[in-house]
This record gives sequence, structure tokens and C-alpha cells, in this order.
Amino acid sequence: MRIVGRAFVGEVLGTLLLVLLTVGSAANAVLQPRLSPGAYGYDSLALGSGLAVLVGVLASRSLSGAHLNPAVTLTLAAGRLFPWRLVPLYLVAQFLGGFLGALGAFVAYREGLLAQGMPNVFSTGPGFLRTEPEALYAWTGPAVAETLGTFALMSVILAAGKDGRIVALWLALTVAAVGYGLGGPGGFALNPARDFAPRFLAWILGVEGAASPYLLVPALFPILGALGAVAMYRALDS
Amino acid sequence: MRIVGRAFVGEVLGTLLLVLLTVGSAANAVLQPRLSPGAYGYDSLALGSGLAVLVGVLASRSLSGAHLNPAVTLTLAAGRLFPWRLVPLYLVAQFLGGFLGALGAFVAYREGLLAQGMPNVFSTGPGFLRTEPEALYAWTGPAVAETLGTFALMSVILAAGKDGRIVALWLALTVAAVGYGLGGPGGFALNPARDFAPRFLAWILGVEGAASPYLLVPALFPILGALGAVAMYRALDS
Amino acid sequence: MRIVGRAFVGEVLGTLLLVLLTVGSAANAVLQPRLSPGAYGYDSLALGSGLAVLVGVLASRSLSGAHLNPAVTLTLAAGRLFPWRLVPLYLVAQFLGGFLGALGAFVAYREGLLAQGMPNVFSTGPGFLRTEPEALYAWTGPAVAETLGTFALMSVILAAGKDGRIVALWLALTVAAVGYGLGGPGGFALNPARDFAPRFLAWILGVEGAASPYLLVPALFPILGALGAVAMYRALDS
Amino acid sequence: MRIVGRAFVGEVLGTLLLVLLTVGSAANAVLQPRLSPGAYGYDSLALGSGLAVLVGVLASRSLSGAHLNPAVTLTLAAGRLFPWRLVPLYLVAQFLGGFLGALGAFVAYREGLLAQGMPNVFSTGPGFLRTEPEALYAWTGPAVAETLGTFALMSVILAAGKDGRIVALWLALTVAAVGYGLGGPGGFALNPARDFAPRFLAWILGVEGAASPYLLVPALFPILGALGAVAMYRALDS
Repeated sequence: MRIVGRAFVGEVLGTLLLVLLTVGSAANAVLQPRLSPGAYGYDSLALGSGLAVLVGVLASRSLSGAHLNPAVTLTLAAGRLFPWRLVPLYLVAQFLGGFLGALGAFVAYREGLLAQGMPNVFSTGPGFLRTEPEALYAWTGPAVAETLGTFALMSVILAAGKDGRIVALWLALTVAAVGYGLGGPGGFALNPARDFAPRFLAWILGVEGAASPYLLVPALFPILGALGAVAMYRALDS
Repeated sequence: MRIVGRAFVGEVLGTLLLVLLTVGSAANAVLQPRLSPGAYGYDSLALGSGLAVLVGVLASRSLSGAHLNPAVTLTLAAGRLFPWRLVPLYLVAQFLGGFLGALGAFVAYREGLLAQGMPNVFSTGPGFLRTEPEALYAWTGPAVAETLGTFALMSVILAAGKDGRIVALWLALTVAAVGYGLGGPGGFALNPARDFAPRFLAWILGVEGAASPYLLVPALFPILGALGAVAMYRALDS
Repeated sequence: MRIVGRAFVGEVLGTLLLVLLTVGSAANAVLQPRLSPGAYGYDSLALGSGLAVLVGVLASRSLSGAHLNPAVTLTLAAGRLFPWRLVPLYLVAQFLGGFLGALGAFVAYREGLLAQGMPNVFSTGPGFLRTEPEALYAWTGPAVAETLGTFALMSVILAAGKDGRIVALWLALTVAAVGYGLGGPGGFALNPARDFAPRFLAWILGVEGAASPYLLVPALFPILGALGAVAMYRALDS
Repeated sequence: MRIVGRAFVGEVLGTLLLVLLTVGSAANAVLQPRLSPGAYGYDSLALGSGLAVLVGVLASRSLSGAHLNPAVTLTLAAGRLFPWRLVPLYLVAQFLGGFLGALGAFVAYREGLLAQGMPNVFSTGPGFLRTEPEALYAWTGPAVAETLGTFALMSVILAAGKDGRIVALWLALTVAAVGYGLGGPGGFALNPARDFAPRFLAWILGVEGAASPYLLVPALFPILGALGAVAMYRALDS
């Protein structure tokens, strides 16, 4: 297959696997289909999402270089580290892959989701304040967490992205680290495709809250954080 | 020892260790013999099964190439990446190793299993819907999860299987990732030998539910998912 | 940028990321903003802190060599493995980075911290004896744990610090190992900057207990433990 | 230092760190000094013990080759893979290191152990059947688990022990895998020094049950399992 076609398939496939296993981990942790109730904890989200990145990166790195994230593609292009002319192709592939991955997770967990009233396991959103019922973080905490978390992720990509085969492990463990450290306020999307594509599916399925204006937080702040890392490392290299 | 004999021993040994530690992790998590009740969670299944793969692969890779999974052997042969004439030898070794591994786990946990009425810790099966008592996922959710999960596993094997020593880690972490992301509906066999061989032992031991027709799901859908990955990467390479 | 400037930025950046994700993990585990109450356990502290080290090391190793810890910098200098004239620059950068990282974690979790009465998630401190209410470990247990834990960390740095790219993983997993094994009595700072810089922020914010004289334990005993490892390996090499 | 002296120090140091962090993880999980009660689970034992191996191996591999386990030293000698004349030196160093490591864990957790009536966190022992109060596994389940678990560990050592730097990770993850899969019946010593040396300290301290005849299980069956792996791989190589 031609190289551009391979890159397109790579980004679709890698983002599909990343979102399939990330959304699937959230569904698994919320629906709790195995062992006793209470057997699932936050580790399922942090490690599940981190290892989902490993699978997506390994499956796609030789096809497309494994961006799998519009924040990565856009800010690499902004830093002249990736050609702008390929950006639309990558973004379309990432959102398509993300949608297909979320669809796969929905089909696998469909019975459990329907039985429990279609909880939103698809998109990220603000966490609980644990004081009065239903009180949630406002958008500021999640915005800061998404910005700093993606700054950390992009710093690792720029500083260690040429480490060879081990890079897939660095990315997986960095996403897990950001999940543990900054996942509380907003659920660590760190990737507009990981949030928006499953959210679009959730909206089609009529899941409550999918069309919330909160969607701007995981769409925009990861790009801001990644841009900060690109600007910093470019200044360091000059 | 002759090379074919070494391959046979390798597949028996590797699948034995894989199934011993996978079934053992399930027994450990269900029987909860240590610390307080409630100390075992889903991480024991996801990480326990993933790390079981690491041990099986490391012990057998220089003997047989560490397939340890009929879905891998059959679809590699279908993709002309493994000789058909060795397929029967590999399949027999995998089921034999899986049976011996399950037997080892049974003997180790025998007292606890008998004391708690022989729960089925051997084979995989549908998860709970958590609505009415005893309501379980039907076969569709598990079938989709087994297909997509083995597609992910085989994609990693085909895309990163030549990464050298680190491949054992990739396979372990991929199985853990699929466990977190897609393990809920059906328990992530991803491998007909991992499900059928312990199930056969469970049937001999009279464990309730071992002979359920559900056994077709983990026997067939992993092969379907692996075949999809082989077809896709062959198309990409042509 | 000149090499000294790069080293300064590297230590600020790496310690910022290390402390951001370590303090963030503690805030996440204490505030519990996601899933059901009880979903967060000790793994969030051990793995969260360990993986925070990975991110900090990967982002800074090519800039500064990734000390990120005054105990490392001081004892390497004492062992003539690092020039004394760079020590002040490294220490200032480490405390500045630690302060900025703690500030980032505070801003991300600000609403939850305020809602729950500003619990001290910033600095380390003695653990519970679990007998009478409020009974805590005295300073001796934490002092021993910090000394032995940093001895273990520095032993790994000296014995395996030249392993190349994989070193970032060794350091992350060593901190997680020390977190599991010796984190109970005092919370495993293992690093004066990881404790003192967030503590200074907590004092500014008026968090109760931040100015406790206990602060001497994580400030001094990590240096003692690291010094022991340097002395031992120097004796072995002579 | 002369090479035999370096080997002695290496085995003392490595086994000290291994046992310090393994016994420390058990003390941490039993005493639960941090977060809410219930925050510690079985992962603390499996991952804590596994990562303890990583630290011990990294600190000692260039000094002594990092056996850290009499079952490894004795069966390598039996398989003519290690000189018999060094065996006594290694065994003495391993038991001395194990005793010192257990002493370090005791001193760190002393206040908590005394406050909670000196529970036996030092040596391994049979798990609960969870039926009638106090009913425990008899010696058969633990004996099988120790034999099979050490067979798995020794298989990895023999098949992948020449993989270079990554071997420390293989050993750590193998011990964690055996902890998840076979740790329930007997607590996965897999190493006579890891059980006997802390048990001797526990006996000195007057901990109830330390002098139980059960001590023969973790003293003998790991050697049996390791011997099986040596015999098998030698037959395969002939």
C-alpha cells in the first residue's frame, strides 16, 4: 500500500485500539461485571488507559509513527517537526479511529450499559468534590490538569521520543503517571480524539451529558499544554 | 534434543506456565486466602494474567517461538507465516500444557476450592449485569470482546513481534491492557487453549457450568479476531 | 542555550514534573474525586510516585542528567562523582521545580482541597498506628525508613545508573518498591526537595501541620541513606 | 576489593534489600499505616515483593551475579552452572543479608508492630480457607505452590537469564506473576533465605508461630522446584 495510505490506516488502527481499551477500561470499572462489587478501583483507569496507549502505539508506529492524538500532530506541525500538509489526514484518521474504538467498546459492554441506564463511560468529565451530593469540579481544575498533563506527555515525547522500541513503554507509563497524578479533576483525556470521538458516539446514543459545553476543556487544553512543551524544547535546542 | 521435540516441549511448558498462573490468579482472587476479605480486586486478574504470559513466553521462546495459543498458531499458518505441517504438533502441545497447568493450579488451591464448594475458577464465562441477581451478559458481548481483544493481541504480535527480547513484555502488557479494557463481558480468554484445557479439567472434576455451550465463544472468536489482524497486516504489506 | 542554563532548566523541569505528579497522586488518593468512595488505595501512592519519577527523569536526563533530588546531588559530590561548583545551581533548581510542581498540583485540585478543608496532601508525615485515634508513628520509624529507602535508591543509581535508556524505568520501579516496602511509617519522601518545597507551599497556604518540626526527618535522613550507599560502593570499587 | 569479597558483599547487600522491601511490604499491608483502613490490597504483596527483587538484583548483579536465593545457588551448582566451592559463601551471605533486611523492616515498622501485638509479617505461612474461623491451608497446598512457583522462576532464569540488563525486570515480574498466581496457599517465599532469615528474627522477637514446623515447606520445596527446572533445561540442551 502507498505510504500515505499506510499512515492513514496506522492512525485509524492505533487510535481505534487506544480508545477501545481506554473507554473499555472505564466501562469495566463503572459496570463492575466481575468478582464482587468493589473489586474495581482507580488503578483500572490509570493502568488501563496507560496500557491502552502501549497497544495503540505498538500496532501503528511502523505505519504512521503513532501520533494517535490531534494535540501531538498539531503541535509537532506548529514546531516544524511534522509537515502541515499531512495534518488533515492524521486528524481525520484519529477521529475516525476514536469513533470506531468507542463503538467497539459500546458493542462489547452494550448489555451492561443498557441494564445500568447508560452511564457515561465514553467521554471525560469533572470529578466529585465529595462534599454535597452531585457537587463537581468546575472547569478550571480540569483545564489546569489537562494542560499540565499534556505538557508532561509532550515533554516525554520530545525528550525521549527517539529512544527506539522502548518509547511505547515510556508513553504508556507516562499516561498512567498523569492518570494517577492529574486524573482526578477532569479524567485525563490528554487527547482531543480520545474525548471528542467517544463523546460524539455517546451523543448519538442519547447518553445524558454528552453534549455538555464541558467538551471544550478536553478539546482545547491538551493542545495548549502540548504547545507549551514544544515551545520550551525548541527554545532549549536553539 | 531434536528441534521438533524441543518445539513440542516448549509449547507444553510455556502454555503450562501461562495457564498455571492465569488460573491460579483467578483462584487466588476468588478464594481470597490472604489479608482481609476484600483485599483482592480486578487488578489481580488483569495483571496476574498479563504477567502469566510473560513467564510462559520467556520460558519457551527459544524452544518453540512461544505461540502458546492455538489462535496464534492457526492464523499465522493461514497467513503463510508458519508451516501448516507443524500446526497439529503445536495445538496438541498447547492443549496438553494448558491441561497440566490447570491441574497444577487445582492441586495448589485444592483445599480452598473444596472448602468453598468448587467455584469455577478454571474457565472464562459471562460477567454480571449487576441489576437483578444472577443476570449475566449473553454471548454477544463476550463474543465481541474476545474478537476485538484477540485482534489487538495479534496486531501487536504482527507489528512488534520482531522487537527482540522486549517482545515478552509487549505481550504481557497487551494481555493486561485487554484484560482491563475488554475483560468484563467474557473474562478475556483470548486463547482457546487457556479456556478449553482448564474447562476440560473442570468438567472431569464435576465443576458446575464447565460443560456449558458458552465454551464455543472462547474457542472460536479469538481465532476470528486473530484472523482479522493477519488479513489486515498482510493487506498493508502488499 | 548554554550548557549550564540547560542543566538548570532540566533540574527545574524534571523536579517540577516529579513533584507535580507525586503530590497530585496524593491529592487524588485523599480527595477521591472519581468512581465510588474507596476506589483509591495505596497503589495510587506507590505506583503514582514511582511513575512520577519516570516522567521527570525522561524529560530532564539529556539536559541535566536528571538528579531531581538534593540527596543525590549532594552525595554524588561528596563521592567526587559530581563537581561541587554545580551543586548550588542544582539545589536551587530542585527546590524551585518542586515548589512550582506543588503549585501546579494545588491549582489542579484547588476546589477539592478547599471543599474538604485543605488536608495536607503536600508534604510527607508519620503514618497511623491504628490503635487509639490519632496515634501516629514517632520520628524514629520514619527516620529509619527514609534512611534505608534512600540507601536502596542510591544503591540502584550507583550500581545500574549507566544502564542507558532503561535507567528511567529502574528509578521509577525502585521508588515504587520503596513506596510499597518502606512507605508506611513516613510516606517515602526519599528526597528533600520532594518534601520541603511542597511543604513550603502548604505553609504559605496555611495548611495545618506544614511547619511541624517533623520536616527535619525527610530533609536530613535521605541524605544520610544516600551517603551510606556512596561510601559503600566507593569502598567496593577501591 | 578482591572478587570473592565483592561477591560476598553483593549477596549480603542484594538479599538485604530484597528481604527488607519484601518484609516491609507485608508489614505495610498488614499494619495499614496510611490512607483509610482497607486501602491496602493483595497488589501490595505481589507488586511489592516483585519490585523488591528488582532492587536487590540491580544493586548486586555486578558484584555477585545476584543469586540472592539459596535455591538458585544450590541448583545452579547441582547443574554444574556454578562452582560448588563458592556455595557456602553465597548461602552464608544470603542468610546474613536476609536477617539484616528483616531487622531493617522491623526497626522501621517497630512502633506499629508493637501497637498491634506483633503480628507475624516476617515469615510466610498458610493462607485462610475462609470457611470456619482460623481454618488454614494444610502443608500440601503451600508445598505444591512453592514447588511450582520456584520451578517457574528458575525456568525464567535458565531460559532468559542471559538477556542482559532487562533480566532484572524479568525476575521482578516473574516473582510478581508467581505472587498473583500461586501466592495464596503459602505466601510465595520461593526462596529459603527470604523465609528462614526473617523467621529467625521473628523467633528472637518472640513472635507467635515463628518456630512452627511449617518452616520446612519454604525451606525445602523451592529447592525441589528449582531442581526440576535445572533438570529439564539440561535435558533439553543435551
